[in-house]
Amino acid sequence: MKIGILGTGVVGQTLAARLDELGHSVTMGTRDVAALMARPATPRAPAFSDWHKQHPQVQVSSFAEAAAQSELIFNCTSGVGSLPALEAAGAHNLADKTLVDVANPFQPRTAQSVNDPPALSVCNTDSLAEQIQRAFPEAKVVKSLNTVNTALMGTPQSVGGGDHHIFVCGNHDDAKAQVTELLASFGWKHILDLGDLTAARGLEMVMLLWMRLRDVQGTSLFNFKIVR
Amino acid sequence: MKIGILGTGVVGQTLAARLDELGHSVTMGTRDVAALMARPATPRAPAFSDWHKQHPQVQVSSFAEAAAQSELIFNCTSGVGSLPALEAAGAHNLADKTLVDVANPFQPRTAQSVNDPPALSVCNTDSLAEQIQRAFPEAKVVKSLNTVNTALMGTPQSVGGGDHHIFVCGNHDDAKAQVTELLASFGWKHILDLGDLTAARGLEMVMLLWMRLRDVQGTSLFNFKIVR
Repeated sequence: MKIGILGTGVVGQTLAARLDELGHSVTMGTRDVAALMARPATPRAPAFSDWHKQHPQVQVSSFAEAAAQSELIFNCTSGVGSLPALEAAGAHNLADKTLVDVANPFQPRTAQSVNDPPALSVCNTDSLAEQIQRAFPEAKVVKSLNTVNTALMGTPQSVGGGDHHIFVCGNHDDAKAQVTELLASFGWKHILDLGDLTAARGLEMVMLLWMRLRDVQGTSLFNFKIVR
Repeated sequence: MKIGILGTGVVGQTLAARLDELGHSVTMGTRDVAALMARPATPRAPAFSDWHKQHPQVQVSSFAEAAAQSELIFNCTSGVGSLPALEAAGAHNLADKTLVDVANPFQPRTAQSVNDPPALSVCNTDSLAEQIQRAFPEAKVVKSLNTVNTALMGTPQSVGGGDHHIFVCGNHDDAKAQVTELLASFGWKHILDLGDLTAARGLEMVMLLWMRLRDVQGTSLFNFKIVR
């Protein structure tokens, strides 16, 4: 399948590499390709250009081109960057396509809030996924994969033999079926359909518990299993 | 141990019965004992007086008396009822005592909101547990048990052999140790300390996911396991 990845950070890179490995034709979208390719490594992340040398078959283009030539699109931008990135991608390039929203709407850190617990910029009676769906009513938004660390998204068996859950929700059954099939191809064994897109509120709000679990356990390599 | 249970609904009844069974001296607190005892059964719940006939050794008294004569207190009132009930219990009767906050701050339903997804009355940058701790600074608030159905609280092995997690958080290590010991006596095998009371934000916010999981699975008999 032709798949677009909006966002070139570690989430986008990981999903792009995995989808490429599975034989999909992957195009990553970014605001400014030249700037991205020229960006040096940081203490936290290697240079994108170095990553790309190892994945030369992944194409890199503008947000709009990546969306235009793809049948299915992943939003892997930051929470605050999601709506502007999707605006740049263009509503007509998203129309009638499955848009998998992987982002979490974390409140950006400021000098004042740096020591506060993490917080969301939207929650409770709304969610980022619903904001995106309202802004792009012709896209078929599916919330998924936001509840696990990047290292698990494409390779769930790397933790606990894959015996844990991933969730999908959205207002379009055909889009959820498409995402469910992709998730199964990643190796996800337990994929739970939570119904319409208002379930994204719970999926985004669970991140405060997730962040605390990460902190007290000292690892991001864990996931929730629903035990019955 | 002398244990007070504030709230006489199904949560309070279940914990009272289990604690009584384990040999504790249990006093349930309510706003008006005579009114409680005279209250008839409803389509949703049997009469408290009928329940009490089966648990005659559980004492029933005012909020204040229940708190005054107890060494450890469970808040099993509704989210919106919690602060008024604790006011009625009296700050001096809560001082230096462990106060286990089991409540979830669900927004009460109105005619307008009856078809909306559930929402919380406090979240993200605050929590009910923190509100309670601020209102009663001399109490030692521990958030726990709010993330599971009543049927699991005291008998975790009734679901999945008990192979799932319960959480504690709070600002007082001695109180958390006391609660952890009680939870272990209930049969909880996986008890995770999430640190200070700000972790209650995540524990309360996870309820939106919990409610949706209940709806799509058609059962409340499930719990989260943290798989690593």
